[in-house]
Amino acid sequence: MIPPPRDFSRLCLHTMTTRPWTFAEAVRRYAGAGIKGITVWRSAFADCSPAAAGELVRSHGLSVASLCRGGFFPADSADGRARAIDDNRRCIDEAAELGAPQVVLVCGSAPGLSLEESRVQIAGGIAAVLPHAAAAGVRLAIEPLHPMYAADRSAINTMGQARAICSQLKSPWVGIAVDVYHTWWDDRLEEEIRASGREGTLFAFHISDWRTPTTDLLEDRGVMGEGCIPIRRIRGWVEESGFSGFNEVEIFSRRLWATDQARYLEDIKSAYLAHA
Amino acid sequence: MIPPPRDFSRLCLHTMTTRPWTFAEAVRRYAGAGIKGITVWRSAFADCSPAAAGELVRSHGLSVASLCRGGFFPADSADGRARAIDDNRRCIDEAAELGAPQVVLVCGSAPGLSLEESRVQIAGGIAAVLPHAAAAGVRLAIEPLHPMYAADRSAINTMGQARAICSQLKSPWVGIAVDVYHTWWDDRLEEEIRASGREGTLFAFHISDWRTPTTDLLEDRGVMGEGCIPIRRIRGWVEESGFSGFNEVEIFSRRLWATDQARYLEDIKSAYLAHA
Repeated sequence: MIPPPRDFSRLCLHTMTTRPWTFAEAVRRYAGAGIKGITVWRSAFADCSPAAAGELVRSHGLSVASLCRGGFFPADSADGRARAIDDNRRCIDEAAELGAPQVVLVCGSAPGLSLEESRVQIAGGIAAVLPHAAAAGVRLAIEPLHPMYAADRSAINTMGQARAICSQLKSPWVGIAVDVYHTWWDDRLEEEIRASGREGTLFAFHISDWRTPTTDLLEDRGVMGEGCIPIRRIRGWVEESGFSGFNEVEIFSRRLWATDQARYLEDIKSAYLAHA
Repeated sequence: MIPPPRDFSRLCLHTMTTRPWTFAEAVRRYAGAGIKGITVWRSAFADCSPAAAGELVRSHGLSVASLCRGGFFPADSADGRARAIDDNRRCIDEAAELGAPQVVLVCGSAPGLSLEESRVQIAGGIAAVLPHAAAAGVRLAIEPLHPMYAADRSAINTMGQARAICSQLKSPWVGIAVDVYHTWWDDRLEEEIRASGREGTLFAFHISDWRTPTTDLLEDRGVMGEGCIPIRRIRGWVEESGFSGFNEVEIFSRRLWATDQARYLEDIKSAYLAHA
């Protein structure tokens, strides 16, 4: 087993993790807590432009890990698919203005389509925006989502399916965001992570924990150590595969959002050292 | 695509599907509705002995498809594992007394153990009760559960993992219960079903539907046609693989349990013809 993180130099928070805070407050608080990375959710741009958001982040000594999120490509009409492609081009533009090296893709799934058809549309959608991403210098990180989201959020539910799209598109601008919450159950996870590392597609690494019982499909994630995910073991596979980016804490939790966020931030830091 | 069911000769209901009914009322109502199969949950034995339950079922012209459920083998202590094995032997005895040809195994998962360790304990637990099952003439049907239950209900989350245990134990008394709710998302499902058919391990087939959104991890299943699962397509794979048993309707739904169960039963019959 790899050792615990020595410090917070690779710790990154998703702004959604501390949702009650405005974007500006999150930036200030993260920087004050000695955190070095931030993954910005697009909701931040309700308050300020992507360029201004990037300025704010950098002026606080933070680096942007990713912009969350693009994707949602499948639709049951050509119009719907075209709108999704337009929105993804806008998301790529926002990432470039923000100064984010990559966009995380929650690929989408249309309940009226088969998973196979959704996957074809996802690959087609990514292919359609890929020239735009390359021109903007923004990478696209496909995030496999847990199978419990297969019906409506992503038809890409395993690293294997994400790797298949990467292989099909063969571009240095397309890779994978590995999230332990979505992938921990997969008995092929280790081999898939190692293969992704060899293929140069390990773009991002997200951490949180799976609580027992989990009472909500979307907003009941746990802080590292609150659940059963072997986070450190998976981080070991990721780092042994050559990944040297941020460990991004992405927790959606109504329970934790209802608590004092400053205290919660300190709990996250402790949990990071103890369990990540 | 295979044609719709022609009649109700292969329709089976799990007693949990109409949970508000007592076991005796469920038997009477199913028989009155022209249904031929029943899968009995062990809670029925609070009211009557397994032998009496079997008598009641047969006197109404119903056949028992399965007894639900054994399993829950993994535990973090030797005592816990021994208790699980004892309970599974009792369950097998109950199945024999009831006249059920098989017990469905929800294999279990202990949050304190790795999934790999839980799987080892599951295989060990099944091996431990296998002689008892063979002597009783009761088959054991491993039910792969959706990955959202990996933490606490089953470390067996794919047909592939279930097949691996079948291959390891190599016994005509160990096979698989395929439930579309648990397995529909798996891109290997068709090949796994066909392989299981070749190996003679397709023991049971459960149907229901996946609703969007799903609001509860346990008790928000849908009637066939209410969701996105390609039930008929999967039934086609199962039947083409040689399975000729019951199509077992297993729906847990607080929403539907709150409705008039007689009307609900008729809705299930219509949905079965239209979507199964």
